[in-house]
Amino acid sequence: MNPLFDNTICAPATPQGSGAIAVIRVSGTKAIEIVDSIFSSVRGDSIKDAKGYSLHYGSIYKGKDLLDEVIVSVFRAPASYTGENAAEIACHGSTYIVHEILALLMESGAKMAAPGEFTQRAFINGKMDLAQAEAVADLISSETSSAHKIAVAQMKGGFSKELSKMRDELLQIVSLMELELDFSEEEVEFADRKRMKALMNKVIKHIERLMESFKLGNVIKNGVPVAIAGATNTGKSTLLNAILGEERAIVSPIHGTTRDAIEDTINIDGVLYRFIDTAGIRKTKGTIENIGIERTFEKIRQAAIVLMMLDARKPDDFKSAITTLSTKIDSKAQKVVILINKCDMVEGGFTHANDTLNAYAKMVGVYADLAGIKPIAVLKIAAKSQIGLDSLRSVLTKTQEDMTVRSGDVLVTNIRHYEALQNADTALLRAAQGLKDNIPTDLISQDLRESLYYIGTIVGEISTDEVLKNIFKNFCVGK
Amino acid sequence: MNPLFDNTICAPATPQGSGAIAVIRVSGTKAIEIVDSIFSSVRGDSIKDAKGYSLHYGSIYKGKDLLDEVIVSVFRAPASYTGENAAEIACHGSTYIVHEILALLMESGAKMAAPGEFTQRAFINGKMDLAQAEAVADLISSETSSAHKIAVAQMKGGFSKELSKMRDELLQIVSLMELELDFSEEEVEFADRKRMKALMNKVIKHIERLMESFKLGNVIKNGVPVAIAGATNTGKSTLLNAILGEERAIVSPIHGTTRDAIEDTINIDGVLYRFIDTAGIRKTKGTIENIGIERTFEKIRQAAIVLMMLDARKPDDFKSAITTLSTKIDSKAQKVVILINKCDMVEGGFTHANDTLNAYAKMVGVYADLAGIKPIAVLKIAAKSQIGLDSLRSVLTKTQEDMTVRSGDVLVTNIRHYEALQNADTALLRAAQGLKDNIPTDLISQDLRESLYYIGTIVGEISTDEVLKNIFKNFCVGK
Repeated sequence: MNPLFDNTICAPATPQGSGAIAVIRVSGTKAIEIVDSIFSSVRGDSIKDAKGYSLHYGSIYKGKDLLDEVIVSVFRAPASYTGENAAEIACHGSTYIVHEILALLMESGAKMAAPGEFTQRAFINGKMDLAQAEAVADLISSETSSAHKIAVAQMKGGFSKELSKMRDELLQIVSLMELELDFSEEEVEFADRKRMKALMNKVIKHIERLMESFKLGNVIKNGVPVAIAGATNTGKSTLLNAILGEERAIVSPIHGTTRDAIEDTINIDGVLYRFIDTAGIRKTKGTIENIGIERTFEKIRQAAIVLMMLDARKPDDFKSAITTLSTKIDSKAQKVVILINKCDMVEGGFTHANDTLNAYAKMVGVYADLAGIKPIAVLKIAAKSQIGLDSLRSVLTKTQEDMTVRSGDVLVTNIRHYEALQNADTALLRAAQGLKDNIPTDLISQDLRESLYYIGTIVGEISTDEVLKNIFKNFCVGK
Repeated sequence: MNPLFDNTICAPATPQGSGAIAVIRVSGTKAIEIVDSIFSSVRGDSIKDAKGYSLHYGSIYKGKDLLDEVIVSVFRAPASYTGENAAEIACHGSTYIVHEILALLMESGAKMAAPGEFTQRAFINGKMDLAQAEAVADLISSETSSAHKIAVAQMKGGFSKELSKMRDELLQIVSLMELELDFSEEEVEFADRKRMKALMNKVIKHIERLMESFKLGNVIKNGVPVAIAGATNTGKSTLLNAILGEERAIVSPIHGTTRDAIEDTINIDGVLYRFIDTAGIRKTKGTIENIGIERTFEKIRQAAIVLMMLDARKPDDFKSAITTLSTKIDSKAQKVVILINKCDMVEGGFTHANDTLNAYAKMVGVYADLAGIKPIAVLKIAAKSQIGLDSLRSVLTKTQEDMTVRSGDVLVTNIRHYEALQNADTALLRAAQGLKDNIPTDLISQDLRESLYYIGTIVGEISTDEVLKNIFKNFCVGK
């Protein structure tokens, strides 16, 4: 066992806050002894002799004072999450009690676990590979059914199996090369080179398919990026608040979503969207303001969907707004929805029969055509009054209809994995080129080894302390 | 068993949010069957046949899709929290997974538990009395060692035992009365009346001692009320923020504290204080503003400790401020600390050698004396610069030195219990008076029965659905 893990760690495993119960997790060679030292079983027996997968009811005292009545679960190595001896203490869900029990455990020799340390131990002890360990964190933070399915598939080793297949194929090529080195007769070499090329192309295709899946995987995990663009004062922030405000009630059970003033994720019909409010676009000579606008364009370019806001009270601005936007987007890769906002403030009000509004919608279509933009929808809305938001949601949902993920689908969702695949791919392409150029086999095999190395880093066959530290620091304590 | 509980309930037992694990609790006649129907043990066996206090590792599927790998704890009636068959599912701490598992349980026939329903079942099934059940909620919300000790004592039945002692004593009086009715000879009556009176006085003393303990119990549970009073712009809110801001880092692990703009609780040296910022006091003719100031005086009257703020830059206002306050406080029951704030803005700065400041402190002492106030301390501070706050904290801690609670101490902390004791006391005092006035025994025994009734409501020997509903609605779901 890794000498790092001679010690025993403890941490709360349930979220902070008041609840019926809280669970404290203890793992390490002395986990059961340490818990035993602070626990009095109601039956009077010691959990030191308890079997794995057994439950024990009793009390924890602080000195002579009863701290709480608890239930202790005992796990024996290797049949535990970490693969070590482990115990879990279920106490009443009071922060005070959790704090005091942790203090007692530490007095008895346990140390506080670092974030992700339980899972890191599971990895080091061979209970799971690195990709599976990373999937545990993804599983916990999954907010949609799709994200959950990908995380489960990865946790169960689906991704690892694909990688293992690729490794086998690469190793097959390497062995063919060794064969060539052993028998350097012309004919054997020729036949094998052909097979090598075929195999190599197969692996390259495999890697590139996985790399391709990152686009979808990333979107499922982090949300479809939707930029809200438009001139100042067209109601961009109002729209963001209207969508989030209405939906937040639905999102509310999901905590931990990273948020700042201008980005927020939201689950619409099972798909996660990441809305990005941008600074208003307007022509200006000020350098500082131009930097802000440059950032806005950057965000617009990164979005999968751009919501272009227009102010229904200012039809004279429609043309220039649409023309400006057209220079900033990639009309093939990005989807545009044009929103005519504040429709309730136009004479005649927000009705289907309002000719002015209908003319505006047509006008927008014409300007878009002229600018070379093909918006997937032009919608009349009134964000402040929450009118037209349902249509917007349907349009968004339609754009993502190919996002359904089946159980067991392998998608790359992790940027670390994507980069490793990219490096493996580069090395393989170099090897393939070398094969074409009839470069000596031992040079080619160097590229293949490099490729194998990068694939190995994904599951953690090859890993450095620094890489591990980086991966596990983002876990929560207790996992 | 109560017909109310023929069904099986489920609820998350751990707080919402991302964590390593979450626990879902299921209880009821069919709890184990229902969990079995959604759970596939890794060993392939059914938990339907599992013994109580056993743990089982396996998977939960939603249709064909793996939802999560979980550990199920099985409990058999009556050896469970509720006294019913029960199971707990420990899954990964994802809100999505918890939601889906609850949905599956409900599809299989469980219903979502109402707040406190698990504990209510424990009460109905005789696992604990009502005072003990209420202590469970107190235990969870305890933020200090003292509050925790009282809750543990009550949960372990300490308070219930005291009440049971009182009931026995009352029943002894009743039986003496019955004896009197059987043998109505003069001498027996005389001897027994004397004994009855003695016994009754004993119970009255006992009840009144418990009622007396409510003052301390309430303060320990809800915090020592500290009002910050003073003229407008003396820095009251700054002081509140300074104390809370500095301490909030320490308090931060404790969630769920009720807060609004003007009240906040804080744990200083193990004692909970409830700081109350008040509107500035100033003379005014405006009716509306006068209402605000009347409210301020009301809050000052309710406080145990009054922090009187003065502005060091306005020594001319000291006298009138102290005089005004003196008319609003009860100098016997309330403790006053006078704070000379903004001492760093006086010429010469905030030093011990600054004669001006020292003169101010003396002046304040003289004015207080004239106004009949005996402040427990006059402190020089600079709230904004966080100077002098340690002295303030020490002074506060000194006022509460008699607040230490020993393990096992019985204190009344619950307003429902206090009111029941009050009612029991009133009835008993009436009985005692009746005994003195030689009123017929059967009339007196009516008062005794009333007293017994009120004591019975505390532990729940006598309870109505409405009372139960009121008690358990304040619990969290899953408890």
